[in-house]
Amino acid sequence: MAKLAAPSGFRDFLPDQFRKRQELVRRIRETYESFGFEGMDTPAMESLRVFLGKAGGENEKLMFHVLKRGAELERALAKGGEELSDMALRFDLTVPLARYYATHRGELPAVFKRYQCGPVWRAERAQHGRFREFVQCDVDVLGSSSMAVEAEVVLATTTALAALGFSGLTVRLNSRPLLSLLVRSAGVGDEHLGAAVIGIDKLDKESPAAVKEELTGKGISEKVASSLLDLHARSRGGRDEALLADVEARAGKAAAPHVAQLREILALTPPLPAGRLAFDPFLARGMDYYTGPIFEVAAEGVPFSLAGGGRFDDLIERLAGAKVPACGFSIGFERVFMLMEERGMFGGGSRGADVLVVVPAAEATAGAIRLGAELRQAGLRVDVFPHAAKLGAQFELAEKKGIPLAVVADAAKLGSGTLEVRDLATRTSTPVARAELAGWIRARRATHA
Amino acid sequence: MAKLAAPSGFRDFLPDQFRKRQELVRRIRETYESFGFEGMDTPAMESLRVFLGKAGGENEKLMFHVLKRGAELERALAKGGEELSDMALRFDLTVPLARYYATHRGELPAVFKRYQCGPVWRAERAQHGRFREFVQCDVDVLGSSSMAVEAEVVLATTTALAALGFSGLTVRLNSRPLLSLLVRSAGVGDEHLGAAVIGIDKLDKESPAAVKEELTGKGISEKVASSLLDLHARSRGGRDEALLADVEARAGKAAAPHVAQLREILALTPPLPAGRLAFDPFLARGMDYYTGPIFEVAAEGVPFSLAGGGRFDDLIERLAGAKVPACGFSIGFERVFMLMEERGMFGGGSRGADVLVVVPAAEATAGAIRLGAELRQAGLRVDVFPHAAKLGAQFELAEKKGIPLAVVADAAKLGSGTLEVRDLATRTSTPVARAELAGWIRARRATHA
Repeated sequence: MAKLAAPSGFRDFLPDQFRKRQELVRRIRETYESFGFEGMDTPAMESLRVFLGKAGGENEKLMFHVLKRGAELERALAKGGEELSDMALRFDLTVPLARYYATHRGELPAVFKRYQCGPVWRAERAQHGRFREFVQCDVDVLGSSSMAVEAEVVLATTTALAALGFSGLTVRLNSRPLLSLLVRSAGVGDEHLGAAVIGIDKLDKESPAAVKEELTGKGISEKVASSLLDLHARSRGGRDEALLADVEARAGKAAAPHVAQLREILALTPPLPAGRLAFDPFLARGMDYYTGPIFEVAAEGVPFSLAGGGRFDDLIERLAGAKVPACGFSIGFERVFMLMEERGMFGGGSRGADVLVVVPAAEATAGAIRLGAELRQAGLRVDVFPHAAKLGAQFELAEKKGIPLAVVADAAKLGSGTLEVRDLATRTSTPVARAELAGWIRARRATHA
Repeated sequence: MAKLAAPSGFRDFLPDQFRKRQELVRRIRETYESFGFEGMDTPAMESLRVFLGKAGGENEKLMFHVLKRGAELERALAKGGEELSDMALRFDLTVPLARYYATHRGELPAVFKRYQCGPVWRAERAQHGRFREFVQCDVDVLGSSSMAVEAEVVLATTTALAALGFSGLTVRLNSRPLLSLLVRSAGVGDEHLGAAVIGIDKLDKESPAAVKEELTGKGISEKVASSLLDLHARSRGGRDEALLADVEARAGKAAAPHVAQLREILALTPPLPAGRLAFDPFLARGMDYYTGPIFEVAAEGVPFSLAGGGRFDDLIERLAGAKVPACGFSIGFERVFMLMEERGMFGGGSRGADVLVVVPAAEATAGAIRLGAELRQAGLRVDVFPHAAKLGAQFELAEKKGIPLAVVADAAKLGSGTLEVRDLATRTSTPVARAELAGWIRARRATHA
């Protein structure tokens, strides 16, 4: 049989990886809970009609559809293979949130602050760092138009990233409608708005000449493209208030309320724990559904953003009919995880049991199990090797599982006497009196923690 | 638009439910980790060829298939709709474990003790208490034939259930091959073995007369059916050793090694924390893949089992070619959850923030956000209402979210002076000096914990 593996783009998690991923989820959750966000969950799949609102933009094309079954499938095949599916796996946590809110609004608080960390599925082309199953970690506040929401999600998210060990963060702040007005003010027509924004967004990585070529290639006149690039160049590194005043003057009267919102967010946000908030008039973000302020968190020396979000006041209405203001933030779980692994930012903490009970001979098995139970009752985490094997092989297992100590359950000495305790790091053994064993291991654990 | 809901058989989790489910997972995990089990995970879906081994029995028929996409889908449709899918969602955690082990064996410890709590999907007919997406919680030990494994998984699982608050448990123990030998000894032919076992299994709930009718209806002679019922009646309530000796005498020489295994498990298992282990010669269990000892945990007054498992020494070979002994236990997560909710077995512990900062007027918003940040730095969990609203509505939100206190961020008094702190349970307010606020809330939290 050919070697079996997880499907392409899908991952197995070995114990060490799994432990770190759990730790990351736990630490993010703790911060968000300390801000009053509540956990919730939705099913892995939704009815297709939930996705018909086109709320997911490009992501919808990447949906995994679930095949109909039985008679329903036969009917669909008889019709020539249309409507083979009426459900699909969720491709993000935002569209399901809108559906969830529509279903449960009456049971939820008037201002609903939620977090959700869970897998989503997208049929991406497999490539390095792109997965077809990956975790998203979202916070959202539904039911308030106040810019205090923006201030709180920015504060909560940077607090979470600071708690993970990140520093030197920049939260770039902009407004989606303001961006449109600004780009229009450079002479870009509505038909070129998307292309202009996408082009300008690439100035982080590409030269102005390359971006200019892209813009003119998309049908934007050379003059307008130059004007846009000038505008962008002048907007770099300025102070927030100067930039805001400049953009307000340039983008015309319609810009006033959007500029006022950004001023309010800047005024409401307390000093951030691991960085600063800064207006960036060309921050764009990808999702179609943003309607107001948007933000993205950059870390020094990292070529991608760690988190991003914004206000999406129309999405719930599109799905549920009722107008419900909403604003959220999403931490790039997989990117943050990768970065933390590369930089050794996970706690080295005891990953497994405190001690392994080693079985030197078959007649020691029952005693080993009882010793394990007794040590656990004394508050220790105890693994027991299940059968007699060479001591070396049992010690090797302890090392592989990150268990620092191994006690040899010598059948003759289990009742009283002393047992040998091996330190896997130093490869030395210490005789410890049977009666003192639990206390000895606890003391050692305390000094090595 | 018609009201949107989760698809039939799928569930949304409201914050209170979600919190309890997380608590349950965490408590189960802590116990298993204290026995040296390591967490791991596999993808939501597997290639269909993983499921072709027929290891899942009836469950395979309930698989959700994932539709092919693009050109592959077109080719499948052109062939008349065969092979529309080459992946399916996992329907249990055991078949994916076998695939995972086959893929990663070289990276795993020689004895691999794992736990996994995660969703599985089955296209069950929707009915009360049956879901199409539900959580399974499994522990398994791969790589040892020792009956010490059975003893440890029984001890670990009852320890987990005891830690959840269950008591009066009975772990029924049997051996799958021994059961076959015993049923044959009553005169049942190989062709009726399955029907006989299924029929006898119903004696918990149905009368002997009804079961007899079922057995004869399946083609078992009246004499053999009577003999089987007699055998069952005599096996109730006997002492383990007497029953084992009786079954050994009855089932013939081939039974000896299986009886020896059960004796060994009974000898190796220490006193269980919340109940007892007892031989039940008619315990059957459903899964096809069990090859040796099997067990099931019953709780007093509960009409279904809380957990079950057994040895499946052939499953990994069927999938991976190499013979790897294995034994596992599965806690019925959804049943245990339902029971714990009904019986109020979840901790009442603080479910949300310690305090809500209430915003009485728009000019207090910035001060409220800063007060929240300050209280959080003092170690508190703080929710902040995001906009000015009637105090009553803000207090109501605190109650709905289970937040015990609300502090009114009176803009005039935020710098110094006293703030009103409302106790949501007693509906009384106490003035607390601004400088003493964090300490006051912490002290109150400590006395109410």
